[in-house]
Amino acid sequence: MSKSLIVQKYGGTSVGTLERIERVADRIAKVRRAGADVVVVVSAMAGETDKLLKMARSLSKNPARREIDLLLSSGERISTALLTIALQARGLPAISMTGRQIGLQTDGTHTRARIKNIDAQRARKMLRENHVIVVAGFQGINSAGDVTTLGRGGSDTSAVALAVALGARRCEICTDVDGVYTCDPRMVPQARRLDVVSYEEMLEMAGLGAKILQTRCVEFAHKYKMPLIVKSSFKEGDKGTLICEEDANMEHPVVSGIMCDKNQAKITLKEVPDQPGIAASIFAPLADASISVDMIVQNVSEQGHTDLSFTLQREELDEAMAIMNKVAKKIRADKVSSDAKIAKISIVGAGMRSHSGVAAQIFATLSAQKINILMISTSEIKVSCIIKQKHSRLAVNTLHTAFALAGTKKKANRKTTKKTKAV
Amino acid sequence: MSKSLIVQKYGGTSVGTLERIERVADRIAKVRRAGADVVVVVSAMAGETDKLLKMARSLSKNPARREIDLLLSSGERISTALLTIALQARGLPAISMTGRQIGLQTDGTHTRARIKNIDAQRARKMLRENHVIVVAGFQGINSAGDVTTLGRGGSDTSAVALAVALGARRCEICTDVDGVYTCDPRMVPQARRLDVVSYEEMLEMAGLGAKILQTRCVEFAHKYKMPLIVKSSFKEGDKGTLICEEDANMEHPVVSGIMCDKNQAKITLKEVPDQPGIAASIFAPLADASISVDMIVQNVSEQGHTDLSFTLQREELDEAMAIMNKVAKKIRADKVSSDAKIAKISIVGAGMRSHSGVAAQIFATLSAQKINILMISTSEIKVSCIIKQKHSRLAVNTLHTAFALAGTKKKANRKTTKKTKAV
Repeated sequence: MSKSLIVQKYGGTSVGTLERIERVADRIAKVRRAGADVVVVVSAMAGETDKLLKMARSLSKNPARREIDLLLSSGERISTALLTIALQARGLPAISMTGRQIGLQTDGTHTRARIKNIDAQRARKMLRENHVIVVAGFQGINSAGDVTTLGRGGSDTSAVALAVALGARRCEICTDVDGVYTCDPRMVPQARRLDVVSYEEMLEMAGLGAKILQTRCVEFAHKYKMPLIVKSSFKEGDKGTLICEEDANMEHPVVSGIMCDKNQAKITLKEVPDQPGIAASIFAPLADASISVDMIVQNVSEQGHTDLSFTLQREELDEAMAIMNKVAKKIRADKVSSDAKIAKISIVGAGMRSHSGVAAQIFATLSAQKINILMISTSEIKVSCIIKQKHSRLAVNTLHTAFALAGTKKKANRKTTKKTKAV
Repeated sequence: MSKSLIVQKYGGTSVGTLERIERVADRIAKVRRAGADVVVVVSAMAGETDKLLKMARSLSKNPARREIDLLLSSGERISTALLTIALQARGLPAISMTGRQIGLQTDGTHTRARIKNIDAQRARKMLRENHVIVVAGFQGINSAGDVTTLGRGGSDTSAVALAVALGARRCEICTDVDGVYTCDPRMVPQARRLDVVSYEEMLEMAGLGAKILQTRCVEFAHKYKMPLIVKSSFKEGDKGTLICEEDANMEHPVVSGIMCDKNQAKITLKEVPDQPGIAASIFAPLADASISVDMIVQNVSEQGHTDLSFTLQREELDEAMAIMNKVAKKIRADKVSSDAKIAKISIVGAGMRSHSGVAAQIFATLSAQKINILMISTSEIKVSCIIKQKHSRLAVNTLHTAFALAGTKKKANRKTTKKTKAV
């Protein structure tokens, strides 16, 4: 609808104290005075959600999800009211809207509801009346009229969905990092912030544990081609990283970023009888226990037996091992072993589509450092390798250099922002 | 509808900590297991509302009332969700309801909305399905779909209104005192808890500063003849005080209670020209400044001049004096003076209707103690006297004895409860 409309989302750290709420209000006032219409989506003040959850868990081991939603949604209502008050104190015609008031309708899945529809009629009216709308993120309402929440990263998803529903020019995710980096600057000091990343690349990165954006939010933006910007809530005038459609005319770097996920574990079943249905008997019990398996590697069968390895999130290792020990007996596998000291290194780049030899270069680079690759998986724009965890820092730094990711800028801006945070 | 239904309201102190929420849950479980249907109305955890208000005021000198309502209503949502979770952990089919979900519709006056209607359809369905309903007190929704709050004592009013809408047997106000007393036990150690008080008496007491119940809540109960019980949240099996219709067959004590309000001040205008319209020129500017005047006394006119005194809440004295100094000049009054060291002693009793001589006995009792009465006002079931503040303790104790209010019980239960609170 309004091409002058910008949707901005501020995370929990950005509104974590009253001083920060004042700073955010100043920023929004500037955007507004520069002539843009603004809709702001806010998370709960940092720490609030955890505090509320802890209280609920001290009262019940298994609190009902419907009640958790009512409880947690209060956090965003508080930050929303406070930011609206701060904006009004600056003379802006701000007005708060809860998930229900903004018309965010979800399915009935409490604590991780999916957005079904946004009835943006009231929001459009408010915008026509020149209001700055402050929206409680993370929350919606189901068809029964009960409060639902959208799960992790829900406020980002609220923001993108609203930007789409209102036809915004772009959606800005304002957070405690100043953009998407070629690699985690804490691991690679030469890491460089990216100016542009494609939706596909960002989706891979999000799926690989880059905690900046949740997969759902990027999927939503991708589906509706809504330009997303990730930028710092604290640095003034910073451009951040633009996440948008891949431009055919654009010269892509082969590799855009390297991710390292140390929160991985591997389970190996030795001498599994190689017969139809065996994979199902191994993975069905894990699925029943809601344990997500990531990479799966099966060796070539020898004399009717095979070795099978898979990776999963480390916090699920104990539960998975208990299940596997039972499964192994049942299917007469020889042995079950696990390794929690591994890491997954992933290289993402839309340029891989047109450039062959990326995987080969990765293997050669790691081999030159005598880093053994335990498992490999690839997709159209990604190569992931499981290596020993002790090699992870060396691996990402060597690969970062090999693919010339540092570019010309050497400054690790992300670190600077982190310092700002601590002040 | 359901004569087995009890509506219980728990105040902020009663749900002030997680331990207290557990205790309240235990109490509700007992009521339920004794066979009653239960609807519970809760306030925000003690201190929460003040904390939120303080945050809002640090962001703006004059925060918008609509935003204050969104902010404050979060407090009740949190305690409601937590109590529901605690009840579910005890195996009770509890379900939470916000002001909107319970159908509490108000007018549009933010921060002190009036209840217009309760659409109790969903609540009735929930009760038929055997649920224990936990309702966020203090809040409703206006016709625009915005959250409103009911002002001071709002949760009590929510509870009574719900009890009426659902046809409950009675409404219990569970709080940090164990009932209504003949006098404040901190002033009169012999003060006795009353078993029964009529609505009219309770209305007078509430209006006179007994902080147990707000006038609005009692008015509501009175209008719909809903029996109200004030009892302790902490003492088990306690009967509390029943507030109900005056029973013609009941032998009334002449006096039910004595109230002492020290938060009073008096302003006197000397030698006011006694002419038509002069009262309006004095009191209209006060009304414009939203200052409530309580008692007004005008002396007999002498030679076209009169002295005029009135009382008001002490915190409004400075503002009122500034206005009166201007008014005095304008109407050519001789002098304006004020006295903040006064107290209002009030004696309330439905029995006064049929017993004459109560006022005379009060004057005689005070006179015997050489306590001078500065101003007097009376109603059908009340006599109020303004005296010097330094006499207030002596006055209430003497009157308490003169009207034999201590009865046979000598225990100041209220004090015991206060001790329980501090544990």
